[in-house]
Amino acid sequence: MFIIGERINGMFKDVAKAIKSHDKKFIHKLAQVQINRGCDALDINVGPASSQPLQDMIWLINTIQEVTDTTLVIDSPSVEIIQKSLPEIKNPVIINSTTAEEYKLQVLFPLAKDYNAKIIALTIDKGGVPKDADSRLELAVKIISYAQELEFPVTNIYIDPVLLPVNVAQDHCPEVLRVLREIKLISEPAPHTVVGLSNVSQGAKERSLINRTFVVMALACGLDSAILDPLDEELIKAIKTAEILLNKQIFCPDYLSI
Amino acid sequence: MFIIGERINGMFKDVAKAIKSHDKKFIHKLAQVQINRGCDALDINVGPASSQPLQDMIWLINTIQEVTDTTLVIDSPSVEIIQKSLPEIKNPVIINSTTAEEYKLQVLFPLAKDYNAKIIALTIDKGGVPKDADSRLELAVKIISYAQELEFPVTNIYIDPVLLPVNVAQDHCPEVLRVLREIKLISEPAPHTVVGLSNVSQGAKERSLINRTFVVMALACGLDSAILDPLDEELIKAIKTAEILLNKQIFCPDYLSI
Repeated sequence: MFIIGERINGMFKDVAKAIKSHDKKFIHKLAQVQINRGCDALDINVGPASSQPLQDMIWLINTIQEVTDTTLVIDSPSVEIIQKSLPEIKNPVIINSTTAEEYKLQVLFPLAKDYNAKIIALTIDKGGVPKDADSRLELAVKIISYAQELEFPVTNIYIDPVLLPVNVAQDHCPEVLRVLREIKLISEPAPHTVVGLSNVSQGAKERSLINRTFVVMALACGLDSAILDPLDEELIKAIKTAEILLNKQIFCPDYLSI
Repeated sequence: MFIIGERINGMFKDVAKAIKSHDKKFIHKLAQVQINRGCDALDINVGPASSQPLQDMIWLINTIQEVTDTTLVIDSPSVEIIQKSLPEIKNPVIINSTTAEEYKLQVLFPLAKDYNAKIIALTIDKGGVPKDADSRLELAVKIISYAQELEFPVTNIYIDPVLLPVNVAQDHCPEVLRVLREIKLISEPAPHTVVGLSNVSQGAKERSLINRTFVVMALACGLDSAILDPLDEELIKAIKTAEILLNKQIFCPDYLSI
């Protein structure tokens, strides 16, 4: 699985504080520890409370690029912030995210093409989050068709079927699993898939148990990638074990210590 | 999920000892503790070392029936032992197991019909364990066709796709998951499915981690039932969480303590 570390997000108090005080050392360490735990990419989000989100994003990008050339995932709901951040990025880059809304598709896909970026696309439109798998798949088809018209490679798209908290939208969880299974049939080649894993346990007790149980189920349904907390050891163990059981990693008795 | 407790099996030293010394108290306790942990049925197997397997099986059946009316799963490779045990059973019963071999089908299905028993059917024939999902599904079709000719209810069949240890047959694990997904399409109504969960981790370290990861994946693929160790708390927590995430149990913040 392609693992995207979620920790550089201003939603976390320690990160918000580091951004505010321009504490480079803290951010350097948080980037490195996530990579050491097996992350293939780092999500970067200034958080909802930032008073100068563009400047903060650019500071984070440059700070992280001082210590790693790993893939950066530029996470912002603002098209403008994504647009103005891209010229700063030297590392491989993933845009997080577009939705199926026309105005976002029209700006973000050409931008992704220009910057040779991959892109996460949420199955959301102006009506919000769809109620079931079929409606999510319809939006995925819309997104992929748009990309194909633009000659944007479908394999550079990560479809995110929008995982909601189990404590408020329990009926959505199996629908998301169904999207993961069926999306591989909607185009050839198929897009990749990604989930924002920690969403599923927002507001619940036993967050780690819920997160790792969901990700294992999602891997069985074909999930390619997740934005998650790589510092959660039980989660990483569950993912490694699932990959062994899917025959995607070679079993050896000490596979957990590798 | 329909949970079948695996612990009353002479393969375990404590059970072998209790059988040999006719220690009813030990067996009573082992039956009750498994039921308290949420088992819907109890597997009963005298183990490979028994010198008088029929007598031991009958003793176990009668001993367990003194304390519970839960479903008994009569687990023996011997057609004769199954045949001679059935008249002793007052509780609901599941035969474990037939294979796809003619001589077993011809004896065990009529027997199951006569005793109103359900039956576990392994996708094995004289050639042994099939190499992939398609060969397993072919054998499942053979078993179900046989049952249908006999007017045996397909919903009383539990197809067991034969889970092998990941450390020696890693490539079989994803094949078993594929059988679980596809078997629901081979008949209407579909048969149930079951796995002998602990097999997957035989001889491996981290047995509990491997078992619970596999069962969660299997549940995502539609597994209905498993023979497993209900005393493994982390396993039971993982199953409860998976059932919540599949929207098969109602979420409440304290779902683990229920």
